[in-house]
Amino acid sequence: MSLEAVTHAVNVRREGNVLVTLDQTLLPNVTKYLDLTTAEEMWEAIYSLRVRGAPAIGIFAGYAMAILARQIPESDFDTFYGEYRRLSDYLNSSRPTAVNLSCILKRMDKVALENRDKSREALLEALDAEAKAVHEEDIAMCRKISEYGLSLLKNGDGIITHCNAGPIATSRYGTAQGPFYLAKEAGVDIHVFVDETRPLLQGARLTSYELTKAGVPCTLICDNMASLVMKQGKVQAVFFGCDRIARNGDVANKIGSSGLAIIANHYGIPVYSFGPSTTIDFQCPTGEQIPIEERPQNEIKELFYEKPMALPEVACYNPAFDVTDHSLLAGIVTERGIAYPPFSESFAKLFPEQMKEADHV
Amino acid sequence: MSLEAVTHAVNVRREGNVLVTLDQTLLPNVTKYLDLTTAEEMWEAIYSLRVRGAPAIGIFAGYAMAILARQIPESDFDTFYGEYRRLSDYLNSSRPTAVNLSCILKRMDKVALENRDKSREALLEALDAEAKAVHEEDIAMCRKISEYGLSLLKNGDGIITHCNAGPIATSRYGTAQGPFYLAKEAGVDIHVFVDETRPLLQGARLTSYELTKAGVPCTLICDNMASLVMKQGKVQAVFFGCDRIARNGDVANKIGSSGLAIIANHYGIPVYSFGPSTTIDFQCPTGEQIPIEERPQNEIKELFYEKPMALPEVACYNPAFDVTDHSLLAGIVTERGIAYPPFSESFAKLFPEQMKEADHV
Repeated sequence: MSLEAVTHAVNVRREGNVLVTLDQTLLPNVTKYLDLTTAEEMWEAIYSLRVRGAPAIGIFAGYAMAILARQIPESDFDTFYGEYRRLSDYLNSSRPTAVNLSCILKRMDKVALENRDKSREALLEALDAEAKAVHEEDIAMCRKISEYGLSLLKNGDGIITHCNAGPIATSRYGTAQGPFYLAKEAGVDIHVFVDETRPLLQGARLTSYELTKAGVPCTLICDNMASLVMKQGKVQAVFFGCDRIARNGDVANKIGSSGLAIIANHYGIPVYSFGPSTTIDFQCPTGEQIPIEERPQNEIKELFYEKPMALPEVACYNPAFDVTDHSLLAGIVTERGIAYPPFSESFAKLFPEQMKEADHV
Repeated sequence: MSLEAVTHAVNVRREGNVLVTLDQTLLPNVTKYLDLTTAEEMWEAIYSLRVRGAPAIGIFAGYAMAILARQIPESDFDTFYGEYRRLSDYLNSSRPTAVNLSCILKRMDKVALENRDKSREALLEALDAEAKAVHEEDIAMCRKISEYGLSLLKNGDGIITHCNAGPIATSRYGTAQGPFYLAKEAGVDIHVFVDETRPLLQGARLTSYELTKAGVPCTLICDNMASLVMKQGKVQAVFFGCDRIARNGDVANKIGSSGLAIIANHYGIPVYSFGPSTTIDFQCPTGEQIPIEERPQNEIKELFYEKPMALPEVACYNPAFDVTDHSLLAGIVTERGIAYPPFSESFAKLFPEQMKEADHV
């Protein structure tokens, strides 16, 4: 596979009235695309993490609603909209904590309401256009984020990354891992150390898969090996994504990010978090207010294994995220540029309107 | 199972001319004891990590040589000793980096030579006695280390531990995990967070198994969750073992220990390393001189899994150990007491004769 085959794979796409999506749960062993046409199939794909990554889920949700709207029988708008909302709410129930899912569903809903007085075909076309716009905006946004990230890299750099924020989870290049593909395109010689990212192994299953397929030099390590690799002088930066950013720059991301950031700071290695500005929650003052999702114990003891790796009666704690304190971050990379500490000031400069809006709520 | 059933399980023992050992590779799913009588079976048990943990391997090696010596046909001493050394060297080749294995084999060898002029039966009895002494000394040593460790704990404490240094790997209570069993005996109320310890999962498979069977309250976590658990205020100390300690107090231990120590220091949590004084290498000035063993890549990608978790062409780096800088340690717990920083001074007080001997080499 070539670099472009990875970055331009379009793992979530619309083909007529079929929603085509890569089944991420089968990677790295099987590359299978699913043809989805019913709401039930779409719900299951999100619920079972066949499609994952906030941007990918957003793109998926846009196309899903455009396709499902065309299946609603002809009727007056109110009857149409009643059914439309039922389907939208149903999809939204597949992953209640995925902010981007509800965000895009609301955006599509707004378009439906705005076109209530148009003909059925005009309304459906408006939904088609909005879904396409969601996708295109994401491509442009990921590209900008990746370009800002690339500006942080130079020949010979080693970078540690955690979890997956590459093409599979986004559109085209990705966010935290986008700079690696751009570096490959630009001929910048880098080496990526990929944390396997326990317990769901997104680093092993997805990130090392994508980077290797694209020909980006990388080495897979266990999460607990980061300290040694840093001590050996092989790492010049840490890049990871984000699920939610507080106004003070505290970053919630995949479990393990905060420990990685602490270790990097110990060795004087800069840490950058990457994400679209939509992940900054301007109404959330600090990371203390971000709830930590807890997931099933069997993900630690049993998932992926041939046999259980701990006794059934052993208690596990399985938090899905942790919060990296803003003091540990050298910068937060967004589509508008890189925010540097103090983040309250740099956010105010990069996002003046969002800051103002949040202050008036 | 009761507390005593765990701490007094005698997982490596001699029964007549049979060496009985718990097959650690089958845990936690199967508890099976192996009856070993031949040198080949014994070699394989060490090589395949069926018996692991420096003290356990040492005890195993002592009994192994006492048993194997009895299988050597009657002859003059030189013929006997030629065959004895062949068997000893053969066993030693099963794990060339295990310092304790060669250490105990040398100790047994010395006894054979010292009794060269005695009758065959007297020589064999001297070997029996030495093997028994190795075992008994280990029990006493682990007990002392565990008692010093217990003195660091108080009611309500949470402790994170890494890898396995409990009864299975030692004799009776263990070293780094010994204090937890003594706390249970003494009615000191503690809670242990067990790192699963990738990639070989000794924490999940062995430590959480032992603690749970013994009724010590514990929670299994992935290695990358330590930072969150510490931030939540649930942890008052970190206890881990050691494979080798340099003269300045730098500690080589299972991969992940140094990162854990850095994170603990960030949160102001004291870190203690536990080990017998035989693991202090007084001729090794700092951790820089300790070689890091690299293990097969498939341990990261394939071992324990139903299907591979990364592509065959993905490169992995699998170091088995890392070195925790002495500046990160609050203390090193030995059978002679707790060494506090600066370690060069406290080692000189606790081990004056070893220091002197090393200086004269």
